Amino acid sequence: MTDDPITIDWQRDERIGHPELVYGEHKTAEQLVAIATQYRDAKRDCLITRCSAEKAAALAGFEGTFDPLGRTWLRWGDEAKPATRGPIAIVSAGTSDSDAVNECATTCALLGITTDVIQDVGVAGIHRLFNRLEAIRQARLVIVAAGFEGALPSVVGGLVSAPVIALPTPVGYGVSAGGHAALNAMLSSCSAGITVVNIGNGCGAALAADRILHMADA
Amino acid sequence: MTDDPITIDWQRDERIGHPELVYGEHKTAEQLVAIATQYRDAKRDCLITRCSAEKAAALAGFEGTFDPLGRTWLRWGDEAKPATRGPIAIVSAGTSDSDAVNECATTCALLGITTDVIQDVGVAGIHRLFNRLEAIRQARLVIVAAGFEGALPSVVGGLVSAPVIALPTPVGYGVSAGGHAALNAMLSSCSAGITVVNIGNGCGAALAADRILHMADA
Amino acid sequence: MTDDPITIDWQRDERIGHPELVYGEHKTAEQLVAIATQYRDAKRDCLITRCSAEKAAALAGFEGTFDPLGRTWLRWGDEAKPATRGPIAIVSAGTSDSDAVNECATTCALLGITTDVIQDVGVAGIHRLFNRLEAIRQARLVIVAAGFEGALPSVVGGLVSAPVIALPTPVGYGVSAGGHAALNAMLSSCSAGITVVNIGNGCGAALAADRILHMADA
Amino acid sequence: MTDDPITIDWQRDERIGHPELVYGEHKTAEQLVAIATQYRDAKRDCLITRCSAEKAAALAGFEGTFDPLGRTWLRWGDEAKPATRGPIAIVSAGTSDSDAVNECATTCALLGITTDVIQDVGVAGIHRLFNRLEAIRQARLVIVAAGFEGALPSVVGGLVSAPVIALPTPVGYGVSAGGHAALNAMLSSCSAGITVVNIGNGCGAALAADRILHMADA
Amino acid sequence: MTDDPITIDWQRDERIGHPELVYGEHKTAEQLVAIATQYRDAKRDCLITRCSAEKAAALAGFEGTFDPLGRTWLRWGDEAKPATRGPIAIVSAGTSDSDAVNECATTCALLGITTDVIQDVGVAGIHRLFNRLEAIRQARLVIVAAGFEGALPSVVGGLVSAPVIALPTPVGYGVSAGGHAALNAMLSSCSAGITVVNIGNGCGAALAADRILHMADA
Amino acid sequence: MTDDPITIDWQRDERIGHPELVYGEHKTAEQLVAIATQYRDAKRDCLITRCSAEKAAALAGFEGTFDPLGRTWLRWGDEAKPATRGPIAIVSAGTSDSDAVNECATTCALLGITTDVIQDVGVAGIHRLFNRLEAIRQARLVIVAAGFEGALPSVVGGLVSAPVIALPTPVGYGVSAGGHAALNAMLSSCSAGITVVNIGNGCGAALAADRILHMADA
Amino acid sequence: MTDDPITIDWQRDERIGHPELVYGEHKTAEQLVAIATQYRDAKRDCLITRCSAEKAAALAGFEGTFDPLGRTWLRWGDEAKPATRGPIAIVSAGTSDSDAVNECATTCALLGITTDVIQDVGVAGIHRLFNRLEAIRQARLVIVAAGFEGALPSVVGGLVSAPVIALPTPVGYGVSAGGHAALNAMLSSCSAGITVVNIGNGCGAALAADRILHMADA
Amino acid sequence: MTDDPITIDWQRDERIGHPELVYGEHKTAEQLVAIATQYRDAKRDCLITRCSAEKAAALAGFEGTFDPLGRTWLRWGDEAKPATRGPIAIVSAGTSDSDAVNECATTCALLGITTDVIQDVGVAGIHRLFNRLEAIRQARLVIVAAGFEGALPSVVGGLVSAPVIALPTPVGYGVSAGGHAALNAMLSSCSAGITVVNIGNGCGAALAADRILHMADA
Repeated sequence: MTDDPITIDWQRDERIGHPELVYGEHKTAEQLVAIATQYRDAKRDCLITRCSAEKAAALAGFEGTFDPLGRTWLRWGDEAKPATRGPIAIVSAGTSDSDAVNECATTCALLGITTDVIQDVGVAGIHRLFNRLEAIRQARLVIVAAGFEGALPSVVGGLVSAPVIALPTPVGYGVSAGGHAALNAMLSSCSAGITVVNIGNGCGAALAADRILHMADA
Repeated sequence: MTDDPITIDWQRDERIGHPELVYGEHKTAEQLVAIATQYRDAKRDCLITRCSAEKAAALAGFEGTFDPLGRTWLRWGDEAKPATRGPIAIVSAGTSDSDAVNECATTCALLGITTDVIQDVGVAGIHRLFNRLEAIRQARLVIVAAGFEGALPSVVGGLVSAPVIALPTPVGYGVSAGGHAALNAMLSSCSAGITVVNIGNGCGAALAADRILHMADA
Repeated sequence: MTDDPITIDWQRDERIGHPELVYGEHKTAEQLVAIATQYRDAKRDCLITRCSAEKAAALAGFEGTFDPLGRTWLRWGDEAKPATRGPIAIVSAGTSDSDAVNECATTCALLGITTDVIQDVGVAGIHRLFNRLEAIRQARLVIVAAGFEGALPSVVGGLVSAPVIALPTPVGYGVSAGGHAALNAMLSSCSAGITVVNIGNGCGAALAADRILHMADA
Repeated sequence: MTDDPITIDWQRDERIGHPELVYGEHKTAEQLVAIATQYRDAKRDCLITRCSAEKAAALAGFEGTFDPLGRTWLRWGDEAKPATRGPIAIVSAGTSDSDAVNECATTCALLGITTDVIQDVGVAGIHRLFNRLEAIRQARLVIVAAGFEGALPSVVGGLVSAPVIALPTPVGYGVSAGGHAALNAMLSSCSAGITVVNIGNGCGAALAADRILHMADA
Repeated sequence: MTDDPITIDWQRDERIGHPELVYGEHKTAEQLVAIATQYRDAKRDCLITRCSAEKAAALAGFEGTFDPLGRTWLRWGDEAKPATRGPIAIVSAGTSDSDAVNECATTCALLGITTDVIQDVGVAGIHRLFNRLEAIRQARLVIVAAGFEGALPSVVGGLVSAPVIALPTPVGYGVSAGGHAALNAMLSSCSAGITVVNIGNGCGAALAADRILHMADA
Repeated sequence: MTDDPITIDWQRDERIGHPELVYGEHKTAEQLVAIATQYRDAKRDCLITRCSAEKAAALAGFEGTFDPLGRTWLRWGDEAKPATRGPIAIVSAGTSDSDAVNECATTCALLGITTDVIQDVGVAGIHRLFNRLEAIRQARLVIVAAGFEGALPSVVGGLVSAPVIALPTPVGYGVSAGGHAALNAMLSSCSAGITVVNIGNGCGAALAADRILHMADA
Repeated sequence: MTDDPITIDWQRDERIGHPELVYGEHKTAEQLVAIATQYRDAKRDCLITRCSAEKAAALAGFEGTFDPLGRTWLRWGDEAKPATRGPIAIVSAGTSDSDAVNECATTCALLGITTDVIQDVGVAGIHRLFNRLEAIRQARLVIVAAGFEGALPSVVGGLVSAPVIALPTPVGYGVSAGGHAALNAMLSSCSAGITVVNIGNGCGAALAADRILHMADA
Repeated sequence: MTDDPITIDWQRDERIGHPELVYGEHKTAEQLVAIATQYRDAKRDCLITRCSAEKAAALAGFEGTFDPLGRTWLRWGDEAKPATRGPIAIVSAGTSDSDAVNECATTCALLGITTDVIQDVGVAGIHRLFNRLEAIRQARLVIVAAGFEGALPSVVGGLVSAPVIALPTPVGYGVSAGGHAALNAMLSSCSAGITVVNIGNGCGAALAADRILHMADA
């Protein structure tokens, strides 16, 4: 209806250290194609999140990489960049959290951050967490993903001194449907300096890690 | 306004094994005095929960025992009965949970159940829980009280095989105000067979323990 | 995206008396196949809950049993075990509650608990409940499933002395959509020692029964 | 601030059969005095609901009757009228529901409806309800007040053929705080033709009864 | 999974004056066929609400009447009965409310109540309501259906003296999605004696009318 | 704790046509005194909203005007300015809405807008609204305040062509407690071009009127 | 089921200055065809909002214009009318907001209002907004659409003196799913005279602009 | 009631780099005295948050420092320590946010972090933010406090590359009462890597900063 052009925030990288990501869920395939074209023409890295298989198919001509589990579509502007910063750990309570974990890991790859994914260490069998604790402690920063009661970040936060970013996932049913119980549990975590992102916001957790590493490495 | 008499369910003890408790919060001091009179005349044990200091003062002539922290008023019908069943553990995340813990423990005393109270073992410092684990494992049943993110029952449930009753407490602020985050976390606990009572329902947790011990000892 | 292996909590049985169940809803068919393979290789009983017909089809090679109503997929590790404990009653308000009832009954079968299912005894025609009361009273423990206003557990709890686990179901519409009205009603039940599990959590109710019977039979 | 006069709907009685009641909670004592003056001058019956003791004291010169439990202030315009219609039953789950019950009964008195109050028949001890069932069945209409899980109207609705108006009360705590669990349970009641008013709206239930009796007696 | 038979409340008619209706949404086609068979064999009138087109197709052999808009399936037990009671008015704010209106009208037909449907009289063009007011005033009872802001029952309640049953419909979006804004508005209606049923509960409104007419005609 | 000075947005008047108002509720008396001093020194008009009687007392030395009903404290910077723009109508459903109405009217006075307050015209007695309709139609803009079911703006919006700003008030109880039912009803109003401000935001409604009149008179 | 005819409010134009729009979401294709027929016969402009592609196909014979992105179907009664009033600006945070923006722009076209659409100026890259500020300042009124955190209207409202109508969009996930976070943020905007419409209510924002321009141009 | 001692997590400092803080709101004065005694005897720094003036008075003998605005009570174990790390900025939208800001700043003082407080830079007058931007950019980490619509962190996050921790405050009314609108807005912030703590959790934001600085300075 409008002729007003799509406006991409090309200066975001300079201003705040990372490129603008493209949120795919409420955009049409046509809009995504127009955006991908702009990125390709500018030779910029393009990451589309919340990208359905149908929309990824519409982007087939751009030779990006689609991850159906994480619902990400990534196209390197010029060439894939090696990961040189980190490492960070992405810890998850269960395999059901894979989509948020994958979105987070792909965003880290875009940002050049090395990740160590440690999954299936939920609190119902807490010995699994202790078995992996040394690996977690080697990370400079820990992202902890969980659905249902979202207790894992509280426990991890009590065990490591690194920054902990809690990532609630929309895994559950009944009172935990949509991830709200997990989100609220994480926000309520007893005074241990944990911070939280929106439910399923794997890319946001990665961008927050990017800010922190950027400052630490300055 | 009405002349309809207050009707106490005297047969509840025979029917379901425990007496009717009196919920004090929405009753006037006058109503509580009338009820306490009936219990005294019937020589029955009378436990009033959610009893304010003002209402307890109005009951001064009945020689009951008031616990201001747990807000309970207890008057033995005939004489105090020894606790002969159990033991159960009442585990709490922090000292802030004391009011629900006390209501629970007083109700257990009424029901003749011995209790072992273990407090300050919240998940932010999970080693405290491990330090007390042997004591917890000696209980036949565990009631776990927590506010804020309510993670403790999930962790305890993964460590002991006894029945676990989760008791959310209204301790917290922001998204955990009123205990709703804790309640939802407990209800969402990952498939380990934990059951839950209403927020702050210490007497309900005790009554549930009573049902279970009654069946187990039958 | 990750090479981190799926980690099953094989020791859960020893620790808390029942095996780890597999929550199927947020796992892909590929993940479920990988998990089922691990269970088969370990000769362990494998119960997948919230399993869709499509996912069950992907598991066809494993020779498990799929119940479309209860959405469970069960494969015995070695051979089907007889039920030797109990009996417990699973009481439901209406035939609409069948999916939660079936999930609960299948989990009981896995755990070796005999069940007596009594359905269609909702409070709108309370004589139906009284007609079945003797059968209910023979159970050592009663699981009560209901949607809509969720009143049945309150009434049953006032009539039997056995442990009562309330199981809200997502049956209803408008204010009862999703089962939240039933859940809240059950949590609010007047001081009778009823405990509650999450909406639709039939397997959780069964696991709670398992904990209780385990303690009682010890 | 404004000079616009308070405008009372004097014609409401002719139009819909009952006078305008005065909602006292969000009005100042000064506003209530101004309103009471208009009613007195017009020789109309004046019922103020949600009237605090402080506001009632400000109205002392008008010689009305204040019920602190039901928080009503009633002044007959000319003289008290006898109750000539009905009878209706006001059934309540417990003595904690007295404030809503009293507001309802006082409004019925204003409207000339005879009431039979039957209290303490909550579902936790359902035999109490059966003991009073004949009395309830003699009523032409039944108002059923309950807090907590609000199950009583569902049970009564399944036992009597008369119109049933469910009156949720703000009695409870945790998930039932404010009466929302009771309200939702009543709205969800399984298809038996029960209707519902707002939480604590005792006068609204009485006015609804008035409409029904008015039509029936026409 | 269970062999426990489906139990229909055949005595409901005698007890409370109307037959048990069948809630179709959470029942499978197989369950509905089994239920319809019982009704046919008993020569009773069978009304299934919330019946999808697929489920209606499964019932094709029973020669009932399916209304896709109101999602009702009706089969007379013996022969269609004439409507002899009433009349009542079913007033709706807009044509979008048709599904609840139709469910209500079909239930009235089952119950032998004559109905006058008056639609498209929402408050945004309130002259339309005044144009139909005489027709509405001829009804003995008025059911008022509305979605969005749900203001119509308040206005109608201020204009007629007959009993008014407010029927919120799930018509709207944003804050009115699901009908919750309409429901709350109706429950909040300023003290005029309006009662309310659950969102979209057209059959419940009809059953409530049935109770009222039954009492009035006794 | 901080030495960072309070920073008032003195340029707001030039930028958007009205001065910065001071929100008093979450500020201490000391902070308000500091702010009032700055305004006095700058000879600017100072309006504090949500000002308690205690805080107004602390401001006694500044010779402002306190309205306890509207909770506003107003001090003219130089001298009171005459109202030269408008007129607008502030229509309210009942006298209980007076605090929001007064806050709105005082803000209009500050902004030089003449107001005509028309109260007690709620929809339960809709003839009262029609009696005042000519007066309302003379206004260039209508602010409509209501609590409870919030139906009045929908009806007014269907009767006048002027801009209508709906102002929900926190008047009600149960589901309408806090004004949320009224807010949602107003937001849901059937497509008639009504806009809405936050609950109780009388000053915001006045500022919106100011923007509109400013544009219209340009 | 009913023979009551669909009643269109033909006088709305005279009364409040704009025609009745047709809300398509909860109407069947058959109902929309009946309504479109009435509009065509009356030679009136017909705008259907929330119109799916399927319903638009059913209207193919009427030669209207369907916009799949904005989900509008527009048929001019006689001939398309030129836009002669305005201009207004429709500012959006991102391309994801296109459906609400398009519904708004199409409604403006119907009403004869010229629009300037300015998109992709969200606050995450606020320089984009400043780049377009002069264009925005040329508008007589600004509609600001945003999802997620809905911050754009607050910022725009602090920069321009024109009337600002905030239009929340259902763009987001987790806590912003459905647009509720954006709506609440807009309603909470700090005292700058912004007004708000329902989530996604693009046509309502246009109608509000119409009222304001109508008054201003009178 | 219990003899179980209060257990302080003395090892938290070693484990995760900061001491256990004491949450004062749900603890009695007696409990706080007992806790303060333990800290004094251990010569540890003791910070009590959410401490009322009454509770602070009960602690008078301990010679701590009470800040009534931030509701903190701080007693240095040995001697006050100089702040040697940082600097960080604490940016707030308005003076109403002072309590959360003060709690945050006091916690930073305890942790040895230097803070620069910049207040009154809310988005309604965004030039104020730009005036202070250079100061903000000198910080290594930015904590941004805001109530109402909570838009400030989004804007700041788009302007600086440092880690941004959003701190919602319970400042507002209506839909922003309690800080929930601000919290949700912050969680929804458009993909810029902002993380969030619970409403009013000033000490949690400081502890998160501590983790980040600890890692960065390692």
